[in-house]
Amino acid sequence: MQFSEVLSAALPSNRIVTDPDVVAAYSRDQAAWAPAGQAVALVRPENAEQVRRVVAACAEHRVPIVPRGAGTGLSGGANAVDGCVLLALDGMDRILEIDTDEQLAVVQPGVVNDRLRAAAAEHGLWYPPDPASSPWSTIGGNAATNAGGVCCVKYGVTRDYVLGLQVVTAAGDLVRVGRRTRKGVAGYDLAGLFVGSEGTLGVITEITVRLLRLPESPPMTIVGAFDSLVSAGRAVAAVAASGITPSALELVDRYCLRAVDDWKNMGLADLGDVLLLGRVDTGDEEEAAALQACFDEAGAVFSTRSTDAEEAEALFSARRLAYPALERLGPVLTEDVCVPRGLVPEMLARIERHARTHDVHIANIAHAGDGNLHPLIVVPAGDEEARARAQLAFEAILDDAIALGGTVTGEHGVGLLKKRGMHAELGEDVLALHRAIKSALDPAGILNPGKII
Amino acid sequence: MQFSEVLSAALPSNRIVTDPDVVAAYSRDQAAWAPAGQAVALVRPENAEQVRRVVAACAEHRVPIVPRGAGTGLSGGANAVDGCVLLALDGMDRILEIDTDEQLAVVQPGVVNDRLRAAAAEHGLWYPPDPASSPWSTIGGNAATNAGGVCCVKYGVTRDYVLGLQVVTAAGDLVRVGRRTRKGVAGYDLAGLFVGSEGTLGVITEITVRLLRLPESPPMTIVGAFDSLVSAGRAVAAVAASGITPSALELVDRYCLRAVDDWKNMGLADLGDVLLLGRVDTGDEEEAAALQACFDEAGAVFSTRSTDAEEAEALFSARRLAYPALERLGPVLTEDVCVPRGLVPEMLARIERHARTHDVHIANIAHAGDGNLHPLIVVPAGDEEARARAQLAFEAILDDAIALGGTVTGEHGVGLLKKRGMHAELGEDVLALHRAIKSALDPAGILNPGKII
Repeated sequence: MQFSEVLSAALPSNRIVTDPDVVAAYSRDQAAWAPAGQAVALVRPENAEQVRRVVAACAEHRVPIVPRGAGTGLSGGANAVDGCVLLALDGMDRILEIDTDEQLAVVQPGVVNDRLRAAAAEHGLWYPPDPASSPWSTIGGNAATNAGGVCCVKYGVTRDYVLGLQVVTAAGDLVRVGRRTRKGVAGYDLAGLFVGSEGTLGVITEITVRLLRLPESPPMTIVGAFDSLVSAGRAVAAVAASGITPSALELVDRYCLRAVDDWKNMGLADLGDVLLLGRVDTGDEEEAAALQACFDEAGAVFSTRSTDAEEAEALFSARRLAYPALERLGPVLTEDVCVPRGLVPEMLARIERHARTHDVHIANIAHAGDGNLHPLIVVPAGDEEARARAQLAFEAILDDAIALGGTVTGEHGVGLLKKRGMHAELGEDVLALHRAIKSALDPAGILNPGKII
Repeated sequence: MQFSEVLSAALPSNRIVTDPDVVAAYSRDQAAWAPAGQAVALVRPENAEQVRRVVAACAEHRVPIVPRGAGTGLSGGANAVDGCVLLALDGMDRILEIDTDEQLAVVQPGVVNDRLRAAAAEHGLWYPPDPASSPWSTIGGNAATNAGGVCCVKYGVTRDYVLGLQVVTAAGDLVRVGRRTRKGVAGYDLAGLFVGSEGTLGVITEITVRLLRLPESPPMTIVGAFDSLVSAGRAVAAVAASGITPSALELVDRYCLRAVDDWKNMGLADLGDVLLLGRVDTGDEEEAAALQACFDEAGAVFSTRSTDAEEAEALFSARRLAYPALERLGPVLTEDVCVPRGLVPEMLARIERHARTHDVHIANIAHAGDGNLHPLIVVPAGDEEARARAQLAFEAILDDAIALGGTVTGEHGVGLLKKRGMHAELGEDVLALHRAIKSALDPAGILNPGKII
């Protein structure tokens, strides 16, 4: 049988899309700079069994599969490769269970992050991982990339909340890995291995996540304005050294503030050149005061703290709006380095130097509290020379992160954009371990080929 | 060259032991019921390079390697297999670094858990994972088995604290996996995969662990005494449903209390038939009162709470002494099932039924708050019939844990004792994934062969 016939037998005809415009729309994530190939079809299964049949069909015919959630990734991990089937999980969007006694939820991969958060809140529960894409990105995509977010500085990343997965393997088997219990060590940590593997080892069809109780205390917001990136960075290092664990510690620089102001007219840039937005959710006034003291002693030109929820929401929305605001100015090349927290000022200084050396605009937002920096390189649309300079700055920043004992990707994943950097970070022996595992679980190499390794 | 010559070239002669008595002493962990084979030699390397050379020598000659820490395991994971080299990491016991700003420590595998805890405390930091073996067990062994402990109900298990590892692979390469930064998604989660793999995928030669700040509030201890296992279990389920997260919730039954009393004359059994020991470390009196209310409403015959550190220490030491106290009565077959927290009363009832059905004594201690139960089957020394009945009860308990949606091992690992149970729990397809990964990372099968799979 032809592949198209086998595929047609795998799921209902309305779940197979070959319209070139629709296929093209599903052929890229948000990494504007990453290349994308030409898919042969888009499939949108309704259930795990259909996913299994699609994978089995592709395995039989050696057709590459590129799984995707909402396509909000920033590394090209969900970009089409030539001749692939795009396997969109966004139609599998049911919350299957919220168990309040066990504090867990079971969801299909297409459930949008904010929707799970809202559903959990109805039970007094909380799903912490909160990537900036949370209004759109899916739990399946979050798990595939081990997504981070604002809360990670205190509450950890997606992997810390994934208890178990249902996965379709490259062999076309539907399996369950992980557990529902609070603890469990029966065998290798396969659930942890699939999390963050960006669709290269299996296709996630169901996720069991651990939930926390909703925090009881209303959060306090602590704002510091600084006259330079480096002095804001010093405040971040001071917070780390103080031992305070804020529930958020975000950095937004003047480029981002102005871009948001130009778009939303919020008057943010009047507050200062660089803002640090801290949050304390323990209800402990002393902790909030200590955080503010870290800001002041590092040279904040202005600082304040408040329990006003609206004010806080406005400030944190500036953080979330920074990326789309910059995208209005031209294609954005998004960095995602993570360095030891004490080296945040040094890394920020180096980023500024690279902006000057390579003559590019680099805006900065950062999950500063865990050292995860997002320098955003913006070039005028159509300026090929600027684009080439941006590429050089991009790679130079990755090398500096490695030199400082950091990583080339704190939370966005490797995809296509960080392959060179990841190889430099891990070295040949560790890459060999990756290849061995990839070959073991996907011997024919049909799952998201060319991504990560 | 003969293997003995190659091995002699790998490390100093005083680091190779062939004295049969010493080799025999290193040939078993604490799982009295698990079989152990005959090793050809014991090696005790001083550094990672010596480990690498030993593994390379064994790889060349296809000699099995059984790595071990302090030998406090309870599943036979460190037991010798015939013809193996016992690779004892207990001599590599240096704390290499404690970084207060980044809140991490770097240690050699032979560092004893309590020693790391004490060293961290000198810096105001805390390494939470606290297996009952913490005065003797090593961080390397804790990582290899993904050890749990009393704190896990609130603070998680060893894997939650391991940031990075240095590992000798089966190929004899010395590699670093994981990271030093707070976040990082460059490649597969190999550090997480090696944690809990019980020496079957690589030999851990260095561990980087995340530390927390020492809790500031003195813990409050909440004690409840119950007249039956099942009513204590109902209190555990009530705590889970209440959403309270105690920092400990331990169960000790009358068999254990009496065994400790007989040994240490502590008068514990006078308190009640079954004790629940809760701990709250938030300084929140209301939370402590709510925990006590869960005990009372579930039918506690007596309950109290206190901030007296000595009193608390006495009660929790009874928990820690239970296992050695029972061992004085005869060989102990240790269970380690974990079930959903709401099903703790049901699982305890089934354990009691199995004790009656199979006519064996089953004592119970439990990390009850996370559903992790340790039924301890004690038989008179030399009573082979009782031993056979105990084996039947052991396997029946595992099957019940699986039937209740639980796991056959919450924290001790699979080793030898849980292989049948793990196979039943995971099923053939998931086992195939395990075998594929094992073959990929250890194609010759020299690393701790016969353990887990």
